[in-house]
Formats: sequence, C-alpha cells, structure tokens
Amino acid sequence: MQPLVESVFYWSDLFGTAVFAFSGVLVAGRLRMDGFGVIVLAAVTAIGGGTIRDLIIGAEQVFWTADTLYLWVILVTALLGQYIAQLPRRLPWYILPLADAFGLAIFTIIGTDKALSYGTSGMVAVVMGVITGVAGGMIRDVLAREVPMVLQREIYATACILGGVLYTCSLAIGITPLLATMLGMLGTFILRVAAIRWHLSLPAFSLNR
Amino acid sequence: MQPLVESVFYWSDLFGTAVFAFSGVLVAGRLRMDGFGVIVLAAVTAIGGGTIRDLIIGAEQVFWTADTLYLWVILVTALLGQYIAQLPRRLPWYILPLADAFGLAIFTIIGTDKALSYGTSGMVAVVMGVITGVAGGMIRDVLAREVPMVLQREIYATACILGGVLYTCSLAIGITPLLATMLGMLGTFILRVAAIRWHLSLPAFSLNR
Amino acid sequence: MQPLVESVFYWSDLFGTAVFAFSGVLVAGRLRMDGFGVIVLAAVTAIGGGTIRDLIIGAEQVFWTADTLYLWVILVTALLGQYIAQLPRRLPWYILPLADAFGLAIFTIIGTDKALSYGTSGMVAVVMGVITGVAGGMIRDVLAREVPMVLQREIYATACILGGVLYTCSLAIGITPLLATMLGMLGTFILRVAAIRWHLSLPAFSLNR
Repeated sequence: MQPLVESVFYWSDLFGTAVFAFSGVLVAGRLRMDGFGVIVLAAVTAIGGGTIRDLIIGAEQVFWTADTLYLWVILVTALLGQYIAQLPRRLPWYILPLADAFGLAIFTIIGTDKALSYGTSGMVAVVMGVITGVAGGMIRDVLAREVPMVLQREIYATACILGGVLYTCSLAIGITPLLATMLGMLGTFILRVAAIRWHLSLPAFSLNR
Repeated sequence: MQPLVESVFYWSDLFGTAVFAFSGVLVAGRLRMDGFGVIVLAAVTAIGGGTIRDLIIGAEQVFWTADTLYLWVILVTALLGQYIAQLPRRLPWYILPLADAFGLAIFTIIGTDKALSYGTSGMVAVVMGVITGVAGGMIRDVLAREVPMVLQREIYATACILGGVLYTCSLAIGITPLLATMLGMLGTFILRVAAIRWHLSLPAFSLNR
Repeated sequence: MQPLVESVFYWSDLFGTAVFAFSGVLVAGRLRMDGFGVIVLAAVTAIGGGTIRDLIIGAEQVFWTADTLYLWVILVTALLGQYIAQLPRRLPWYILPLADAFGLAIFTIIGTDKALSYGTSGMVAVVMGVITGVAGGMIRDVLAREVPMVLQREIYATACILGGVLYTCSLAIGITPLLATMLGMLGTFILRVAAIRWHLSLPAFSLNR
C-alpha cells in the first residue's frame, strides 16, 4: 500500500485501540476497580486479542512490544477515560457503538492480513481476524467475572467473520489490497451497525436439562 | 512408527477433537449461547490445551494453524452437535464418557510425545501431556463462569499424569514407541473409566476459615 | 553479576516461587479442591506470570521448561502446604505477607531485567515486571471464580510498577546492576509492606449506572 494509506491505517488502528481501551474503562468503573485495575482492563481489551494472534501465528514480535505507542494510547485512555466517563454532558448514545464498530472492523482486517502475511491458510487467517477483534473483550469479561458478552448477545463476532471472509476472498480473486481492505472493513462495520440498529442476533442454542 | 500406525493415531486425534468439541457444545447449550458462542466453546475445549502446549514448548507452528482439518472438525461438530444434542432418542449414557476417556488418553500421549520430541525433560513432558488433556476444558469452564470441573471432581487429570508417566518411563527403559503408546493410553483410559464406574476421587483439601 | 550474587538471586527466586505457590494452596483450600486442583492453583500462581512474560518477549525457552527445579518447588509446596495450612500452631500473621512482598519484589526485578535483556524498551520492561509479579495471581483468582484481587484492593501492582521503574531508570543513568537490583527490590518491598501496614489503596473508580 502507499505511504498515505499505510499512515491512515496505522492511525485508525490506534484509534481503535483507544476505543477498545475505553470499553475496558467502563467495565472497570462498574466493578469499582482501582487505577491499576482500570489500566489492566483497558489494556487487555485493547491489545489482548492482537497478543494472542501474534503468539499463535508466531510473529517475530508481539506488536505492542515493538511499538510503545500502543501502551501510551492505553495509558492516556485509562486516565482520561475515568473523567470522561463521569462527565454530566454526554455524547449522543450512538457515538460509542459506532466507534466500537469501526475499531472492530480495523482490528479484524489487520488481524486477517497479518496472519496471511505469515503464510497461514485463508481459514486460519479469518480465525485470526476474529481473535484480534473479540478475544480482548472476552478476557475483559472473564476478569470482570461475566460470561463473555460476545458469546451470547447480538451479532458481533459474526461481523468479524464476514469482514475476514470478504477480505480473504477479495485478495484471492485478485482485487487490489486497498479495495479488499475497504470491502472487508465495510462488511464488518455495516453488519455490526445493522445488528445494533435492528437488534439482530443469532438464534440461541438452548439445552434445557 | 509405521505409516498405518501414524494414520490410526492421526484419525484418533481428530476423533478426540470432535468428542472434546462436543463437550463444549453441551456447555454452550446450558448457557443459551448463540451459534458463535457454540463454536468458540467447542474450539477452546478441543484445541485450547494443545495450543498452550505448543506455545510453551515453542513448537514451530501451533498444530491447527498448519493443518486446517482440526478447524473443520470443530466447525462440523459445533453445527451438527446442536442437533444431535436435542435428539429425543439418545445413545446409551456411557458412550460419551467412554469417548471422552479415549480422547483424553490420545491427547495426553500426543502432548507428552510432542514435548519429548522438542527435547524437554520427562517431567516437563508429563506436564505438557496434562495441559494438552485438561487445559482446554478448563478454559471452557472459565468462559462458562464455573470453577473448572477438573480441579474439584473425580479423577480426571490424575489419569493424564498416570498415562504420561507410563509413556515417558516406558520409552526411557527402551520399550518401543508403539508399545509405550499403548501402555500410556491404556493407563489413562482405564484409570479414567474406573473413576467414572466407581466414582473414584481424590480427597478434597478443605480449609474452613 | 558475580557468581555469589547470581546464586543468591536464584535461590531468592525459588523462595518466591514457593511463597506464591503457597498462596495458591490457600485459595484451593477455601474452594475444597482436590490434590490436583491444589497443584494447579499453586503452579499458575507461581509460574503463570513468568510464563506469559516469556511468551510475549519471545524467550528462547519458557524458564520452567529449561529448569525443572521450579516444578519440584511447586510440587513440594503443594503437598507440604496442605499440612502446614492446617497446623494448629500458626506463624505470626505478618510472616506470610512479608514473604509475599519479598517474592513480589524479586519476581518484578527478574521480569523487568529479563525483558531488558531481550532488548525491549524500558516501558515494555516495566510492564513485563508487573506481569511477572501479578499475572499468576490473577489467573489463580479467575480459576477460583473471583474478580482478581489485584484489580480492586490495596496497593500491590503499583509496588511492581515502582520497583520496575526504579530498576530501569537506575540502569539508564549508569548505576551498577547490583545496586539497581537493590533499589528496585526495596522500592517494591517497602511500598508493598507500607500498603499492608497502613492499609494504603488507590482510590476506586466507580460508575454508578
């Protein structure tokens, strides 16, 4: 990709990191955690998924150990986020879900793309995109002693799967990386926003025994 | 080992993967998870232990990223399993525990053997066998917000330890790999089945304070 | 460092391993776990943090797979610890917290130092020191189905941060490794002991919604 596109991508990733970190801050606040707990929940939400991905694909370095800016974004989000979350004047309710959907889209494509660059099959790459998108939130929920939201509610991970499949298939049929990225991100973003807007969810599987 | 033995071993491993995945499906059903949650619980149960093992011993590749068949087995089990679990006509009650004990035996020996092939000591190899056998189920239980069953109930992990020790010691005294595998698997399988049949358990350690 | 210092350091590390393992034994006892559960909780508390650190920094070997003595210390602690915990005559109450603070100090410096030796930035090294010190206890608490203590109560992880920052900065300004180690360990130890003695804690962040 061209330098400009690379740059937009990188800053979008940092933006997604901040949004995911902020969702960790909100959970920490509900559990009355201390400052360290806020940072930990922000960090696992924001970089937990990417860390697991990097370990499994055997990346040379876990991404945030090579580029400290991710940690700084988390730290600043954890500190500022505590005040922002308590402000009386609020943003419109849809801002945070939209930002989260955008973060989910970029995390998914970055994860899928990184796995492909390490030579995995398309199927494994899609799984890595999903892990990048949702595993951090799952660890956050486990630390907060909740059944991970993503396993029970609205379409969330499914949006990652759609985006990852769109991206991988687009590349496979020879579409340019930039267009494939657009398609993949749009797939994840639109399905996620639609799920929020119309409360779409997968049918629950229930064994009453 | 000869090609035929290798082949039997490989298909047994896939069978164990399906059985472990199905146990994840059952837990997901009790928690009313959606389709994605079913797949995640099936996957962590089936390949969680082997993944942790491969990361810790520093395997060149995590096994399921190199051979996509494991993911397909999990996906098919997660989809078919939801229907099988709801069928009115049931298999005899002992089929699933027997299949699970077989899966535990094969996972244990595969984990112990892989660790040894990476040059670990016998003790570390036994630990890796145990991790391969039980860690996936522990993650499943944590995601389901339960204290992992394996830490509290019936003899389960102890059967892995027995099998791993039998296998490692057999190799150490010069028994052929095939026979050592048989001994190790039988050790795990028989102790586990006996524990189910006669409700054997280790004494609980209780601090009432 | 000189051989004598190396040796003192190594045995201190094993002592910290035993103390952390014992804290796992106590939690297992409250949950009425069986013998295997006691060993697992002892092990994850004692070596869980160092394992995550070694995976993330990409150490050639996870430390306890290269030196089996750690596993033996855990095994012996898990077995003896069950009896010690039930003895009617008790040690003075402050012995265990002091030992734990010492273990925290040594784990923090070892983790920070190991990360630096793999070429990480100072900030990442401090994070690795914190992970080495507290991640094992967090896994223990998650397995015990509790919100990790370290996220909510008294100053604990903050003591790791202080020690890691002192150590890293000392090295950066040219202080000898031995003195930097002393400073770092003292920083962690004293802040932790002070937190216990005067019940110091960070303010909780609470969102009442």
